[in-house]
Amino acid sequence: MSSLTGGFTLPGEAGHEDLSLELARRWGADAIRDSDGTSLSPALLDQGMVVYSTVCPIRGHNDFLNAHPHTLQQTFLCTRPHTFVGETLDIVLLEDFFAGQFKVNAGEDSRAYWQVMDRTSNVLLSQDAWEYMEDEGLVRVKQVKPWHSYTVSFLAYRVWEEISMYNHTTNGWQAEHLMPLDPIWPEARAYLVEWLKTWLEKHPHTSIVRFTSLFYNFVWIWAAEERRRILFTDWASYDFTVSPLMLNRFREKTGYAMSAEDFVNKGLYNSTHRVAGQKKIAWMNFVQEQVLDIGRELVSLVHKAGKKAYVFYDDSWVGLEPNSPRFQEYGFDGLIKCVFSGFEARLCANARVPLHELRLHPYLFPVGLGGSPTFSPGGHPEKDARQYWVRIRRALLVEGVQRLGLGGYLSLTRDYPEFVQYMDELLAEFRQLKALHSAGKPALNQTRVAVLHTWGSLRAWTLSGHFHENERQVLMHVVEALSGFPMDVRFIGFDDLSAGALDDVDVLLIAGEAGSAWSGGELWTDEAVETVTAWVYGGGAVLGIKEPSAVPGFNTTLRLAQVLGVDIDEGRYASHGAWQYHSACPAFLEANGASLPEHQGVWLTSKNADVLLEKDGLPVMIEHAFGQGKSIYLSGFKDTPPNARLLYKILLYLGGETSPDFIAQDDAVDCAWFPDSKTIVLANSGEMPLTGSVPVLGTKVPYQLEPYQIKFMKL
Amino acid sequence: MSSLTGGFTLPGEAGHEDLSLELARRWGADAIRDSDGTSLSPALLDQGMVVYSTVCPIRGHNDFLNAHPHTLQQTFLCTRPHTFVGETLDIVLLEDFFAGQFKVNAGEDSRAYWQVMDRTSNVLLSQDAWEYMEDEGLVRVKQVKPWHSYTVSFLAYRVWEEISMYNHTTNGWQAEHLMPLDPIWPEARAYLVEWLKTWLEKHPHTSIVRFTSLFYNFVWIWAAEERRRILFTDWASYDFTVSPLMLNRFREKTGYAMSAEDFVNKGLYNSTHRVAGQKKIAWMNFVQEQVLDIGRELVSLVHKAGKKAYVFYDDSWVGLEPNSPRFQEYGFDGLIKCVFSGFEARLCANARVPLHELRLHPYLFPVGLGGSPTFSPGGHPEKDARQYWVRIRRALLVEGVQRLGLGGYLSLTRDYPEFVQYMDELLAEFRQLKALHSAGKPALNQTRVAVLHTWGSLRAWTLSGHFHENERQVLMHVVEALSGFPMDVRFIGFDDLSAGALDDVDVLLIAGEAGSAWSGGELWTDEAVETVTAWVYGGGAVLGIKEPSAVPGFNTTLRLAQVLGVDIDEGRYASHGAWQYHSACPAFLEANGASLPEHQGVWLTSKNADVLLEKDGLPVMIEHAFGQGKSIYLSGFKDTPPNARLLYKILLYLGGETSPDFIAQDDAVDCAWFPDSKTIVLANSGEMPLTGSVPVLGTKVPYQLEPYQIKFMKL
Repeated sequence: MSSLTGGFTLPGEAGHEDLSLELARRWGADAIRDSDGTSLSPALLDQGMVVYSTVCPIRGHNDFLNAHPHTLQQTFLCTRPHTFVGETLDIVLLEDFFAGQFKVNAGEDSRAYWQVMDRTSNVLLSQDAWEYMEDEGLVRVKQVKPWHSYTVSFLAYRVWEEISMYNHTTNGWQAEHLMPLDPIWPEARAYLVEWLKTWLEKHPHTSIVRFTSLFYNFVWIWAAEERRRILFTDWASYDFTVSPLMLNRFREKTGYAMSAEDFVNKGLYNSTHRVAGQKKIAWMNFVQEQVLDIGRELVSLVHKAGKKAYVFYDDSWVGLEPNSPRFQEYGFDGLIKCVFSGFEARLCANARVPLHELRLHPYLFPVGLGGSPTFSPGGHPEKDARQYWVRIRRALLVEGVQRLGLGGYLSLTRDYPEFVQYMDELLAEFRQLKALHSAGKPALNQTRVAVLHTWGSLRAWTLSGHFHENERQVLMHVVEALSGFPMDVRFIGFDDLSAGALDDVDVLLIAGEAGSAWSGGELWTDEAVETVTAWVYGGGAVLGIKEPSAVPGFNTTLRLAQVLGVDIDEGRYASHGAWQYHSACPAFLEANGASLPEHQGVWLTSKNADVLLEKDGLPVMIEHAFGQGKSIYLSGFKDTPPNARLLYKILLYLGGETSPDFIAQDDAVDCAWFPDSKTIVLANSGEMPLTGSVPVLGTKVPYQLEPYQIKFMKL
Repeated sequence: MSSLTGGFTLPGEAGHEDLSLELARRWGADAIRDSDGTSLSPALLDQGMVVYSTVCPIRGHNDFLNAHPHTLQQTFLCTRPHTFVGETLDIVLLEDFFAGQFKVNAGEDSRAYWQVMDRTSNVLLSQDAWEYMEDEGLVRVKQVKPWHSYTVSFLAYRVWEEISMYNHTTNGWQAEHLMPLDPIWPEARAYLVEWLKTWLEKHPHTSIVRFTSLFYNFVWIWAAEERRRILFTDWASYDFTVSPLMLNRFREKTGYAMSAEDFVNKGLYNSTHRVAGQKKIAWMNFVQEQVLDIGRELVSLVHKAGKKAYVFYDDSWVGLEPNSPRFQEYGFDGLIKCVFSGFEARLCANARVPLHELRLHPYLFPVGLGGSPTFSPGGHPEKDARQYWVRIRRALLVEGVQRLGLGGYLSLTRDYPEFVQYMDELLAEFRQLKALHSAGKPALNQTRVAVLHTWGSLRAWTLSGHFHENERQVLMHVVEALSGFPMDVRFIGFDDLSAGALDDVDVLLIAGEAGSAWSGGELWTDEAVETVTAWVYGGGAVLGIKEPSAVPGFNTTLRLAQVLGVDIDEGRYASHGAWQYHSACPAFLEANGASLPEHQGVWLTSKNADVLLEKDGLPVMIEHAFGQGKSIYLSGFKDTPPNARLLYKILLYLGGETSPDFIAQDDAVDCAWFPDSKTIVLANSGEMPLTGSVPVLGTKVPYQLEPYQIKFMKL
């Protein structure tokens, strides 16, 4: 197959065979798939294309679940706080939750975990201080203090699998509510194995079984009121992995007796964005083991049936962790990630698996994930596709993937010829990039960057979900910008610090809000502070953004203040004098068009802290020499082309590279150099035509680029 | 004396007798004073005016102090943190402090208090882990951990009284550095008593001894580097009251053994703006007792000499606390406060003392406190005077004082005839207001407001220092706005809550940043939460501004979230869904021209939280019904006329008054009604002529006011 076809998965649609075959030819598809809601007809199955079939292991087993309701998936829930105002305090457990998602698990093994908390005093009530009234579904709190607020934490079955629930609610589906099966129960696991065996026998045309995904969905707790439909959602959190059996096995294995409070955390739950304690990390590790144990068995069944197994990196992916070192043990043949952004392309590409496929947005659905029209009146799917593709393309200049795909109802493309045409261009660009990567990796700058956060390499190239779900986290902006830099970027955790992770790193990057998993919080132990301090003093460099290493209780808000020359004033410097300064910036870092968000409370701690840039009278970029090393502090960061360019230059500056290759004159132009193919790639992410030059191998290469154009120039 | 003269203290100036007498007549002065740097000649003393003479009890005793150096005042200091980077760790104690302000107290009774702290681990080093090398003035830390940071806390003599230091440094004074005497030592106290007796004998012309002030200056620690001259300054803090003798007496009295760390607090010291612990409050109480004990003796000497004693409410006022219930025990005859703002007028007027005098700004100095020219080229002292006066005048509509005064070099007025003329107007306005207050108090609205904060009535009508020193504290803006409302406003502390302070209050106001003394921090005990919750539920109303009742460690950031319907997201809601809302405002609160600063992280916690106003997509005013009561939350507040008007209306709204008197049509117009004099006063604070009306006794009174004009209208 020539490089002008292949590497593309088309969603076929029964009833639209002609269109399916026409687009398969036009777009050079070498694989065809069904989607949630569509099927493939014999006319499509017999065209010589590889056939992907979707299976969701935990859905579609309502009969079994009705017969074995204890194998429903569960979660801990916590009611809202109820203030005792002088009458009987009855707390209706499910009152604030979405009707249909949950059912109280009032069984004996569940009840042992229930907790009533006095949230005013942070005190756990004894079991005889309250009573569950099953008929009313409420807890009556009998021993109350006037004006204190109380919550009830309890175990609930999840009786409506969340993706099914989303589709019913958003797209008006009317079918039976699907329930989620928990394969941790031996009887459920046995059933699931038999079910998959049968499925495999019934799908002889299928070459590739596409798991969507494994067993546990990311947490998605919905609320009763439409005005606040989502109570808690976190793409990377393990709240939906809980059951009395899992809790017992965990205690046997690790010695940790988990309580409801470990999960509900004052009613706030444990967001991936917040610092994680040892117990939570142990729980995640344990779940990963259990998921691997069951998942591996399913994959081996697929292989025994002579088929390949790909897995979708979304929905019920919790416990799978494609970036963990144990992911290879599943034996998956491919990983599929749906992508809007550059970082998601890197996230997929980073996993150790033979094949990486990106499922593009927009889906072939009337409405996009954000709720705006796509393939429906008012929609411009070709503009959406381009908007996402230019982000993804930046990342694909640095790291390649093997395939692209679409999903949804192919028939919807009929009324959008601009989209069909844009896909021609997009696929041609992709195939050229893929060919270059096949011939050899692109060149990188010399500066090696390590991003430090709570999750380390487990959550390389991701925070939790899509960009728009993480916009408030400064690290999201940083990671998206990083995804397109021709640099060695790695992600490390705090355990890695003492294991020598900084030995072959030039710049340590820490970006996050105080208390966040990204800033590090209490993981900034004395030992971590010592390691980083020593490393910088000896010649390393830190780039700290917003509130890196913030921990309460010390003499400075930032535990790295001595390295950064900067602290954050959260009130502690209310009566203190500030260093006066004149800002002056090295020419290399002069920020044309870049704009760093100011942050109230940025506070210079050292007379050697040099303000490079200020905004509205507040310092936004500060350099500090420390021993043989140095640091730069940024008050914030938003991902825009000029800001990404500034970030790129700062990293190079800290790495000692101040005449680097690959920095095009225009911020919107990204550059890659593929030495094995002797090819320069230049990609314009912007809507303006651009003319300029870019240094490659020390010489200036001129360019002229149309809006959004990518050019491949043989040297 | 008619109401057209008197009530005014003129600074006389020897060498300028004619001018002094001319201005005394023109401005109707009934008292004449010397100032720091000027003296009165016989020609001025013999004019029949009351003579004020300034004494500063702690300054001007260098001979005694040279002979008794242990009676110098002292303070705890803490070095900056020094990171151990692999060589000898020598910390030079005074390296970072202003040369000349301090001298290490290396005496035995001092050394017992020294502390070397590992700030990385928050650990105190044992005494044998370090050594003081007196000749080099340094501490050598011998037991160090690599890459940890260390500080030394120590006692230092203050060898340059801070006001003397300020004048030398700012105004180029060249005289001998004056040292501060600590009268806590019996020998110093005996000396001081004798000195005052002598002084009284030598000043037969003096009618009024004006103490500037008593013994302990507000803390003002200067730094070595010009780029950051002020290390720590806090007008209301007790750091300069420390000595081994005071520490010992305190331990004997209270049982608390204070350490250096209690004062230096990780090197941050204890700002008045931060939440205070019990030990700090006990220390302040103890110092107040000691100061009262000595101060009362000095006042009685003045009285024995047939003179009156006034005290200046600034400089060495620490321990005096004119708003404490014990202030009357001094027996002072008058209190003098220098004022820029309305709240300072109320602060002075609030003290229980027979006479209140405001010393106006600008001082008759070439340069103002802020460093800008006043009576020197480029200066416009008449504009400065008007700017301050219209602020002060607002407050004087509500609460009267008996006198005004000026200070400084009278001769400087010679080149500023506009200033001289403006003083004519200002004094005429003041005397009319004074006459009204003498005849009877102005009417108030019915709503009674209590402001709750750490310091309660001790710090009624103040935070710490002038407005411009507190601009970052939201409560400063609120208090300044409150100073001109015709309302019953009181200030209460947390101890007052349980003592029934809310029984006769309509609105409880809490305004402050998290962790601040004004928000309340850890003083929000369960009991405080219960009291306020119960009170609101029963019909009370809370106005919460910015981060009221914020305390770490609970299920909500704000401990009053259940009352306010609002919480602050400092990261805890990173994965949570927010309540959608439509904002709608009651007509009475519609905010023409008002603008509330938005605050990132304002988070609705209740479906009953109604957003009244939003800004840039963030809610800035939220109402919440709770039981029979309610609350309003504001995301921030800046004092401007329209914002002050909005605040005034919010308080009335919460108090149930929605057709109140005294609200003029224009935000810049304040109104007072003096029923005993049957006089309406209308004051325009703005630079525009205004025509409108104001409801008084339910009828609309029309007005027409020139810029800055005040009108007195007899009904």
